[in-house]
Amino acid sequence: MTWPRGASAGPEGPTVPAPAGVAAVAAGAEVAAGWSVGLDVGGTKTLGVLVAPDGAVGPSVRLAARRGGDGVAGTAAEAVRVLVAEAGLPAGSVAGVGIGLPGIVDPVAGRVEHAVNLGIEAAVPLAAQVSAALDGVPVRLENDLNVAALGAAHLLPDPAPDLAFLALGTGLAAGLVLDGRLRRGASGVAGEIGHLVHVPGGLPCPCGQRGCLEQYASGGALSAAWPGLGDRPAPVALFEAADSGDAGAVAVRDRFAGAVAAAVRVLLLTTDVAHVVVGGGVSELGDPLLRVVRARLDDEARDSAFLAAMHMAERVTLAPRGVPVGAVGAALVGRKES
Amino acid sequence: MTWPRGASAGPEGPTVPAPAGVAAVAAGAEVAAGWSVGLDVGGTKTLGVLVAPDGAVGPSVRLAARRGGDGVAGTAAEAVRVLVAEAGLPAGSVAGVGIGLPGIVDPVAGRVEHAVNLGIEAAVPLAAQVSAALDGVPVRLENDLNVAALGAAHLLPDPAPDLAFLALGTGLAAGLVLDGRLRRGASGVAGEIGHLVHVPGGLPCPCGQRGCLEQYASGGALSAAWPGLGDRPAPVALFEAADSGDAGAVAVRDRFAGAVAAAVRVLLLTTDVAHVVVGGGVSELGDPLLRVVRARLDDEARDSAFLAAMHMAERVTLAPRGVPVGAVGAALVGRKES
Repeated sequence: MTWPRGASAGPEGPTVPAPAGVAAVAAGAEVAAGWSVGLDVGGTKTLGVLVAPDGAVGPSVRLAARRGGDGVAGTAAEAVRVLVAEAGLPAGSVAGVGIGLPGIVDPVAGRVEHAVNLGIEAAVPLAAQVSAALDGVPVRLENDLNVAALGAAHLLPDPAPDLAFLALGTGLAAGLVLDGRLRRGASGVAGEIGHLVHVPGGLPCPCGQRGCLEQYASGGALSAAWPGLGDRPAPVALFEAADSGDAGAVAVRDRFAGAVAAAVRVLLLTTDVAHVVVGGGVSELGDPLLRVVRARLDDEARDSAFLAAMHMAERVTLAPRGVPVGAVGAALVGRKES
Repeated sequence: MTWPRGASAGPEGPTVPAPAGVAAVAAGAEVAAGWSVGLDVGGTKTLGVLVAPDGAVGPSVRLAARRGGDGVAGTAAEAVRVLVAEAGLPAGSVAGVGIGLPGIVDPVAGRVEHAVNLGIEAAVPLAAQVSAALDGVPVRLENDLNVAALGAAHLLPDPAPDLAFLALGTGLAAGLVLDGRLRRGASGVAGEIGHLVHVPGGLPCPCGQRGCLEQYASGGALSAAWPGLGDRPAPVALFEAADSGDAGAVAVRDRFAGAVAAAVRVLLLTTDVAHVVVGGGVSELGDPLLRVVRARLDDEARDSAFLAAMHMAERVTLAPRGVPVGAVGAALVGRKES
């Protein structure tokens, strides 16, 4: 895939080059021919990416978020126009747009039911709104964890990728791609492991239970246990303090690693996914995070031949950096690959 | 489906009538035409069932178990011959035989790697052995939990059944059928939730960990906590004592119900299956078991709008009684429906 000239610079923020070795997607009967755009809409920014007809990941764009249904729809349509213009694609080239959002989404109706972080508190027919702003291009919606899992799966070389995308963000949850197919679940909550009880009678959770895994294994949990100093994010401040020998920091880091390891174990023992890909804000810690989680999994396997045989530590990886994984997955939704 | 005369009596033990309302299976390209036989091989008995070309469940047979590779193979071949003879089917009518076994099975190679309860401690090419004894009829193997899940799915009216079969036997584990497809997992251990930690630092488990769910939510756990009296099975004795107000029995029953509810929660939050079907020896308790597990799930949902919205209690059911669910699933494996 050779990108048209001028395709590598978005209007706002850094753009992301197409990663090397991105797996091409075999076009099935269900896959729309043509280009697709994927958008990963978050509380502070919208990331967009263009995906070529052969599945190659192209240039991306980053726009500041606007709140509310009209704000989100307007930013989404703008991101598509910017990507198409920058890539120099002729009108009508885009066969589909996919949008991933943090909230309760009805993919069939193309409706966002609720998305507190985006300022959407009543149902919004977002797919129709964005489509109308783009001369009728088909627009599909999906939950943000599901698009992240699809994007991570697309970036693996496996013909039938099998993984959980474990997002360590404000909260804790996973998206699942099993045997190459997105697993939404019967009520659309597959992967909501953050509300399994990790510490009986433990920390209160807004969900109404106590001791939920999310209270121990999320970015929010880390910030509560070890507030960052100045402009250093909490996870960075914590890991630095632990590395420098601060006993309190070591204890907080170890408790966090144990909880993330528990989340990995739940995913592996229940669904037996080939890979657990760790993403979300905390994953920006990179290798130091991976190291402590793997060490914890290895520790637990030391006393258990059963766990040792599962090779849990080596099945955990970090989400690829420098690639807008969620936006890539959203583009696959846009071309109906889900 | 009308059964040939004489098809309703097996040579040993009770036979099971075809249940009313069994869902017919649409024959796809992968489905072998013709009759199939399913065998559920256990440590004490082998249950066999004949399934018609249209998917209707026919007569069954029960044979005493024999141990070791040759014993298991011999009993399996005998069960097939008995079913075919009793149904009066002409030679060559059986297109496939499926066998479910409690152990480590390689479905592709048709080999049992290890099955302690059957006296198989080194790899046995069981599929080839049984096939040779049956004039070359194709024979396929599968794990016993997987065939139980497939059988339970077949007995639902849903076009794409979605369930976990939660077996409360000596141990605790689940089989998964997701969106109509068997989920084996990347290393064949999907559903092994019995070795998730339920009580940190709790009862030792043969797997090497402490506090595994299996130590609290299985038939083995019940027997350890409340040994049966005389010929009354432990679960029956326990529930009777609890019903009569014995405070110790109530405590053991409540702890058990809490652990089963935890297993249900893990399955629902991780995979979001439409149904959790409870089977295994303990499920013979019937409605009293279902009642205490549902009550526990309802209790937990009382303080959590999140859990309440999942309607967990009503998604739990008991495996159908009087139907050899595992053997039915094995027959589907025999006709390649997995």
